[in-house]
Amino acid sequence: MEPQLTPLIDSLPSTVPFVGPEALERKRNRPFRARLGANENGFGPAPSVIAAIQESAAEAWKYADPENFDLKRALAAHLGIAPTNVIVGEGVDTLLGLAVRQYVQEGTPVVTSLGAYPTFNFHVAGFGGRLVTVPYRDDREDLEGLLAAVKREQAPLVYFSNPDNPMGTWWEAAEIERFIDALPASTMLILDEAYGETAPGSALPPVDISRSNVLRMRTFSKAYGLAGMRCGYAIGAEKQIGAFDKIRNHFGMNKLTQIAALAALKDQAYLKHVIARIIAGRERIAQIAAGNGLQAIPSATNFVTIDCGRDGPYALAVLNALIDRDVFVRKPMAPVLDRCIRVSVGLDDELDYFEQQLPQALAAVK
Amino acid sequence: MEPQLTPLIDSLPSTVPFVGPEALERKRNRPFRARLGANENGFGPAPSVIAAIQESAAEAWKYADPENFDLKRALAAHLGIAPTNVIVGEGVDTLLGLAVRQYVQEGTPVVTSLGAYPTFNFHVAGFGGRLVTVPYRDDREDLEGLLAAVKREQAPLVYFSNPDNPMGTWWEAAEIERFIDALPASTMLILDEAYGETAPGSALPPVDISRSNVLRMRTFSKAYGLAGMRCGYAIGAEKQIGAFDKIRNHFGMNKLTQIAALAALKDQAYLKHVIARIIAGRERIAQIAAGNGLQAIPSATNFVTIDCGRDGPYALAVLNALIDRDVFVRKPMAPVLDRCIRVSVGLDDELDYFEQQLPQALAAVK
Repeated sequence: MEPQLTPLIDSLPSTVPFVGPEALERKRNRPFRARLGANENGFGPAPSVIAAIQESAAEAWKYADPENFDLKRALAAHLGIAPTNVIVGEGVDTLLGLAVRQYVQEGTPVVTSLGAYPTFNFHVAGFGGRLVTVPYRDDREDLEGLLAAVKREQAPLVYFSNPDNPMGTWWEAAEIERFIDALPASTMLILDEAYGETAPGSALPPVDISRSNVLRMRTFSKAYGLAGMRCGYAIGAEKQIGAFDKIRNHFGMNKLTQIAALAALKDQAYLKHVIARIIAGRERIAQIAAGNGLQAIPSATNFVTIDCGRDGPYALAVLNALIDRDVFVRKPMAPVLDRCIRVSVGLDDELDYFEQQLPQALAAVK
Repeated sequence: MEPQLTPLIDSLPSTVPFVGPEALERKRNRPFRARLGANENGFGPAPSVIAAIQESAAEAWKYADPENFDLKRALAAHLGIAPTNVIVGEGVDTLLGLAVRQYVQEGTPVVTSLGAYPTFNFHVAGFGGRLVTVPYRDDREDLEGLLAAVKREQAPLVYFSNPDNPMGTWWEAAEIERFIDALPASTMLILDEAYGETAPGSALPPVDISRSNVLRMRTFSKAYGLAGMRCGYAIGAEKQIGAFDKIRNHFGMNKLTQIAALAALKDQAYLKHVIARIIAGRERIAQIAAGNGLQAIPSATNFVTIDCGRDGPYALAVLNALIDRDVFVRKPMAPVLDRCIRVSVGLDDELDYFEQQLPQALAAVK
C-alpha cells in the first residue's frame, strides 16, 4: 500500500485558483500582445527599485533576515505603528494561508462573498473549513449580508476586500468601521486592502491596532509593481500578529524582495506618479467601454470591470474572443457578476491594442 | 472575547527554528567579519545568474508562471525524468511544510534523527505530529535505528538528509537503497539531498521515480549559491508529486527566482568550479582544526563539523568566543553531537579570519 494522504488532503480537488497567462500562451502557442488579466502593474517598479535589485543581485547567496527587521521597521514608521503590529510574508496569498490555518479547523464556518478571491477559498478548503458565501449586492460586497452570515453561523473568520476584487468597487471608511464595530469580538476579520493605494483616501479607515479582531492585509504586488517578488504584509494587534510566528516559514522571504520592498516604500514619489497613471488608465478603459456601448463599473483598483450588458455566457464569449485576439483578460465567474469582463490597467500601447481589438471581439460574438 | 486560535496553533510555542545572523549582529551592534554559520555559499551564484537577475529585474511586476513550466522542464531534462515527477517550491523548507501537511495529522508519529533539521521538526509540530527521534550513531544518521522506529511506530513519514546536516557525514547510495528497499510501502521517506551536489557521486542513488514512497528534495540554496532566492524542488512518483498541487501556493514563486534557477542549472561549468572550491574549503577547515588540536569530521557538504574534543558546554563556549570575535558559526545541539561546532565553507578571507581567531577563542575558553 502506497503512502496515504490525510483524509482531508485526499478529499481536495486538484483545481488551481487561477490559470496563468503563460499556460494560455503555451496552449495557444502564441504570446499575448496585451497582458491585462492578472491585475499586475505594467508600469513596473520604480527605477530606484530596479536599481536596488540589480545592485544586490550578487547578494542572492545570503538567506534573508528571518525577522524582516528593516522592512518591518520601515513599514511601521510609514504606518505610524510599532514593528510588532506588522508581519511580512511571501505575498498576501501566503499570509492568507497562515491566517486561515490559525483560525480554521475541519468544519469551521468561514464567511466570504460569492465570487470573491479564489485563493482565499482555496486556503479555506485546504484546511477543511466550510465556506459560507454571501452574494454581492449591486456589484459591491454586501457588508450587511456578510455580518448577518457571521452571526448566523457564529463564524470565527470573515474575509472581504476593500476596494473589491473582482468588481473594483469600494466602501467608504465609515462603512468599514461600522462593520468592524458590529462584528462579534470573537470573529476575526481579514480586510484585504491589496488595492488600498489606488483607492480614494476616504475608503481606508485609519490604522487602528487596538482591534484584536482585525487583520488588514496589504501588498507590494499592485501599486508598487512587484507582483513577481512576492511581498505582502498584515497589520493588526500585537498578539494576533505574533501568532504568525508560530507557523510561518521563518526563512521564506527572498533576500532581494526585502531589498526591493524597502526601496519601493522609500520611493513614494514614484508611487504617486504610478497611481496617477493608474487612475488615468481606469478612465481610459471606461471610455473604451463606453465607446463600444458597454458600461464600466466605477473602480478604485488598478483594473476596471466592464458590464458586457448581457449574461454570463455572452461575457465569456467576449473574453474568449479577446484572448483569441491576443488580449489577456479575466472575468468574474459568480452569477450576476459573470456578465462582466475584468481589464487591468496596462501600458498605453496595451490599452491601444485593447481599444483596437474590443470592437472586433464584440462583432465576432454577435 | 478575542478571536481564538485553533487548539493546535494555540498550543505551539513561539520558538523559531534558527536565529538569523542579522539578529545577532543587531544584538551585538556589530557586523560579523566571517559569515560561516548558515551553510550559505559565499562563492555566490554564477556571474551568468547574477546577469540574468539584473537583466530581468524590470520584469518584477509580473507574477511568475504558476506552473513553473520552464524550470520543471529543465530540471526534468537534467535529471532524465518527466516534468510531472518534479515539483518546484519556495525553498525546501516550504516543500517540507507541504509534505508534512499531506501526511501528518494530530498525533501522527513522524520519525527523524535527534538533532537533525529543526525546520522539519517545526513543521511536524505545526501540524500536530508526534516526533519520534532516533539518536545519531558515530556521528551519522542511524539508518537501522530509523527503520526500526518506523516499524515500531508504524510511522507514515520518515525524514533524513544525505549528506547529513548538521554533521556533514553521508551514506553511500547502496546503503540508502537498502533503507528504501526495507521501508514499508506505506511509509513516505523524505530524503533531503540539499547537499547532494557537494557529495561524492557514489552517495546519491540513481533517480528512480517508480518508488511511490520516496520524495527526494534538492535545492538551489547550497551549491548553486541562491539561498536568498528561495528555490527547492522535490522528485518523486507522479501521483505523489501531483498531490502538492492540491495545497501549494500556486503563485508563490518569485519571478526572478525562476529565471535565476534556470540560469544556474544551465551553468554547470560554474557549478563544477564552485564545488571544487567548496571541497578545497572543507580541506582547509579540517587543516585549521587540526592545527588547533581539534578533529574535523569528514564532510560531503559545504560545511565542516569540528569536534571540540570535550562536552557540549565547552563547545558552546568555543562558539560564543568565536561569535564574540565576529565569526558567525553555529553548532549541533543534541547530546553527543553538541560537542561540535559547525563551520560553513566561506571565502578565503573569511577562512583566513577564522584561522586567525580560532586559537584566540580556544585560549579564551581554557
